[in-house]
Amino acid sequence: MKIPYTHGGDIYSHPVRMDYSANINPLGLPEGVKRELEQCLRENICAIYPDSGCRALKKALAAYHQVPEEWISCGNGAADLIFALTAAIRPKRGLLPAPSFLEYSQALSQWGCEIDFFPLEEEDGFDIDTVRLCQTLHEAQKKGRPYDILFLCNPNNPTGRSVSREDMVKIGKKCKALGTWLAADECFCDFLDHPAEHSLIPDLKELGHVIVLKAFTKIYAMAGLRLGYSLCPDPELNRRLEQVRQPWSVSGLAQRAGIAALREKDYLKETARLIGPERERMKGRLESFGFQVLSSQANYIFFRDRKNKGESSPVLYDRLLKEGVLIRSCANYPGLDPSFYRICVKTREENDQFLETMKEIITVTGGKNDGTADYDTRNHV
Amino acid sequence: MKIPYTHGGDIYSHPVRMDYSANINPLGLPEGVKRELEQCLRENICAIYPDSGCRALKKALAAYHQVPEEWISCGNGAADLIFALTAAIRPKRGLLPAPSFLEYSQALSQWGCEIDFFPLEEEDGFDIDTVRLCQTLHEAQKKGRPYDILFLCNPNNPTGRSVSREDMVKIGKKCKALGTWLAADECFCDFLDHPAEHSLIPDLKELGHVIVLKAFTKIYAMAGLRLGYSLCPDPELNRRLEQVRQPWSVSGLAQRAGIAALREKDYLKETARLIGPERERMKGRLESFGFQVLSSQANYIFFRDRKNKGESSPVLYDRLLKEGVLIRSCANYPGLDPSFYRICVKTREENDQFLETMKEIITVTGGKNDGTADYDTRNHV
Repeated sequence: MKIPYTHGGDIYSHPVRMDYSANINPLGLPEGVKRELEQCLRENICAIYPDSGCRALKKALAAYHQVPEEWISCGNGAADLIFALTAAIRPKRGLLPAPSFLEYSQALSQWGCEIDFFPLEEEDGFDIDTVRLCQTLHEAQKKGRPYDILFLCNPNNPTGRSVSREDMVKIGKKCKALGTWLAADECFCDFLDHPAEHSLIPDLKELGHVIVLKAFTKIYAMAGLRLGYSLCPDPELNRRLEQVRQPWSVSGLAQRAGIAALREKDYLKETARLIGPERERMKGRLESFGFQVLSSQANYIFFRDRKNKGESSPVLYDRLLKEGVLIRSCANYPGLDPSFYRICVKTREENDQFLETMKEIITVTGGKNDGTADYDTRNHV
Repeated sequence: MKIPYTHGGDIYSHPVRMDYSANINPLGLPEGVKRELEQCLRENICAIYPDSGCRALKKALAAYHQVPEEWISCGNGAADLIFALTAAIRPKRGLLPAPSFLEYSQALSQWGCEIDFFPLEEEDGFDIDTVRLCQTLHEAQKKGRPYDILFLCNPNNPTGRSVSREDMVKIGKKCKALGTWLAADECFCDFLDHPAEHSLIPDLKELGHVIVLKAFTKIYAMAGLRLGYSLCPDPELNRRLEQVRQPWSVSGLAQRAGIAALREKDYLKETARLIGPERERMKGRLESFGFQVLSSQANYIFFRDRKNKGESSPVLYDRLLKEGVLIRSCANYPGLDPSFYRICVKTREENDQFLETMKEIITVTGGKNDGTADYDTRNHV
């Protein structure tokens, strides 16, 4: 299956005054991280080779997550580790929920990996049916064609729907029994109201055959710095993750910034205070505009414009782009079509501006919440 | 062949007050790059996704090198592109000069690539014999076991010896005729007295089956920022170089810093003015200490301590480390042994300090230049 390849956050292809396509913490870089970066410039960190072992950062992460340092691999963003993981495992068969983050299939397809999609159904609210998923894994094994890897993004991107820790453990045990690697992508987990109810990190040791992917990119707004990491109790996989990459994947600045970010406890609390209420407020407003909005648990909102159903282009995306507002068209996700969109949740003021622009281009249909909205498609200058 | 794995620039494993192991421009980050990084922090570049296409940077590089933008791929340091290149080509058989940069073999060995070493001989001054190299390529082809890739580091690391453009073209033509990819690593080329007499960039179009690797890391002292690139006229290889990697390999800071660095013409002139004379001065001093010193054309010096011959450990390295001075032991290069070392050339003041420390630990043997030196091996506190 050939998947067209675009992402959120591409503010470089068009003039964009408001980017609602990238799911980055709207609070921006934590103050402590900013200060650390300024200090790094003064110390001339850019001019020396970074520690290829990321030892200070790994130590800080190990203390933060209460895991052994040896479990941690650091990368140039979580995407670096997704590619490294597929290079380390060289899976022949992979299972991916659809829709989910596009990088998994791009990374897997580099290895001639046969990819099966596990469809998430609109009528199930795009939730993962744990029983059905375990059956799918099991049946593949019975047919003599087991999966080598399953990527699970929790909460899922673009839907914002999460799986409970309990269910993740069930899936992890099934994977372990079948010899399938479970890659649990928890890059957005810290945006959930209760991250601990979803994270697999405390279960890593018991499960064994699992790797958790994490990023500073989103939760600490460090997308331009690039820093991700993984936690895995398997020494052989961790060794392979280093072997398949260059030794200096993580810049000196990112290593220092990461250590500083982990001290930002108040920043995380403030993030939680902001995101939940704003997300619900935006959901209500989007519904009042006539869109069909999925209940999200993360810092982004997945919604559908039923009027757009059957269209070959993402009408709302195109219309907003004319206003300099970038949202994520989900047309290139397997299983979705141009009627699906994703936006991020930002600060109250930014969201007000965004909603105002939305309102201006939409002729409100009276809040009938039937998933349709009319746009004012007059040419704007 | 299993190669032990250490590098220069590891100032994190031991207390180091003077690092002579990493070949970085001693002038440090150019002022224009420093200012640009400060500006990036003010603009909050760290908090937004970088352009995955590195479009502005590619444009600047294309203008700088007078090549089409499509020829350029950007990476998280040149090492990122070395790994990407091997992932893109998946070579079955590779030819590497020995000694040369260690990353080539690490990257190739990820693909189960069979590596042959082309030994550079001490009696030839570790120079590459172009005729013998072309014969080696040719004979492999005749035996039905052609090489898929040849890495040539020019000037070579750790020796500092270069190949003329004329000879590189000969090698490139032979590679083209045999279907062997020539990867010309020109990461240190800008440190040569006359880079244009060695670079293959003007010949890329004619040669076709060649890729040139370049880095900002060394010449602009951006090792901690990570930025490298490649130039290749083959559209299919360039496409593969993107496919095998994550879309956001290059941080936003590195992209901006790279563009700023390309404007630093005076910095390059100042570098040239510094390196040549200091290198020759240091060579003379090292010889007066009794070492056997290869004539280098780059910003580093390769030398041998004949007294150390047959020893299983790099005695001089160990002794200097006790003083907090890190040099590169070349014991882990294929074809070398613990009697070989590499040091970089820094500013006059730094070099004076370094030579002073060297002198203190060495009982000068009277300048007989027989490649032996005696160390004062008393315990220092």
